[in-house]
Amino acid sequence: MDDLLQELIEEIQKLPGVGPKSASRLAFYVLSAPSDEIHLLAEKLVEAKEKIGFCSVCYNVTQNKVCSICSDLRRDDSIILVVEEAKDIIPVERTREYFGKYHVLGGSLSPMDEIGPENLHIDELLERVKNGAKEVILATNPTVTGEVTAQYLSTLMQDTDVKITRIALGLSMGSDLEYADELTLSRALERRQEL
Amino acid sequence: MDDLLQELIEEIQKLPGVGPKSASRLAFYVLSAPSDEIHLLAEKLVEAKEKIGFCSVCYNVTQNKVCSICSDLRRDDSIILVVEEAKDIIPVERTREYFGKYHVLGGSLSPMDEIGPENLHIDELLERVKNGAKEVILATNPTVTGEVTAQYLSTLMQDTDVKITRIALGLSMGSDLEYADELTLSRALERRQEL
Repeated sequence: MDDLLQELIEEIQKLPGVGPKSASRLAFYVLSAPSDEIHLLAEKLVEAKEKIGFCSVCYNVTQNKVCSICSDLRRDDSIILVVEEAKDIIPVERTREYFGKYHVLGGSLSPMDEIGPENLHIDELLERVKNGAKEVILATNPTVTGEVTAQYLSTLMQDTDVKITRIALGLSMGSDLEYADELTLSRALERRQEL
Repeated sequence: MDDLLQELIEEIQKLPGVGPKSASRLAFYVLSAPSDEIHLLAEKLVEAKEKIGFCSVCYNVTQNKVCSICSDLRRDDSIILVVEEAKDIIPVERTREYFGKYHVLGGSLSPMDEIGPENLHIDELLERVKNGAKEVILATNPTVTGEVTAQYLSTLMQDTDVKITRIALGLSMGSDLEYADELTLSRALERRQEL
């Protein structure tokens, strides 16, 4: 194979979840695609990489100083939904049922990976809470480190007036009880609600 | 979501086999990846797109006038393996059991898509055969159009001295050469039969 093509395949293969066959398929797509499309893709890659940074309020990704959600005056400032990563905001937005603000921690507490409270945007969250939030919704992932982080944040804020909630953990819609893992089912039973 | 990020996701989503969720996952990867890596990827995309064309002998993709396989003097000039697309060469090369040359048709005969013999590099293949090939291995895909194309080529060359073979159809009908595993493809090469 020619060097250039091989080099392109190698670069594509560095992307997460892209194996050798997908990389080669994508590279051949690049060769056959309209030139404009590939130039635009390359341009957007560089532009996004160079111009997108973090929101100075919530640490969401943004090309501005303050992200589009934080600067949206129609959204409720008094509710803060806390997520581990900026990308976790997207599925929440997709529900079209949340109209408060966000706070991105930048990860979860994980002693194994040497990630302590000082490595996350926790002080900044407490500052925002102090400045008048009514509710903090903890939406860290339902994993060991996400749960630990939610517990930790909850403890930190227990002496404030803010209402602290955790997104419900249970069976996912459309799933089958037969295939639910034990831990999820235990949680779903524990947190059963009266109808 | 910010415009730049949205635009990047839209461009990524134009790639084949990349849905909205993968596109957003890849875009967030771009934001977190080392800057050098993303610049290199963008550069390779543009470079490959601009500099890679077709081999003047076999129509494989190449950055030169003649591809690396055609210019490899150790390879047997007298055997020509015919494929539909340049990407089909990769799985054959991966078997490390084929040391002849290739010929890329640029597709397969498909009246439905208005692709006739004049749209494929068939004349060029016949010219190469006339110039001294001993065997032509027909390795078009085991699909309806691939089979028709193999039959057509076989008929065209039946009055010449060249030996015409078809890779063994250990491959299941309706599958695609691009995704064949090495072993299946090795067997198919080994058991090729004279038509």
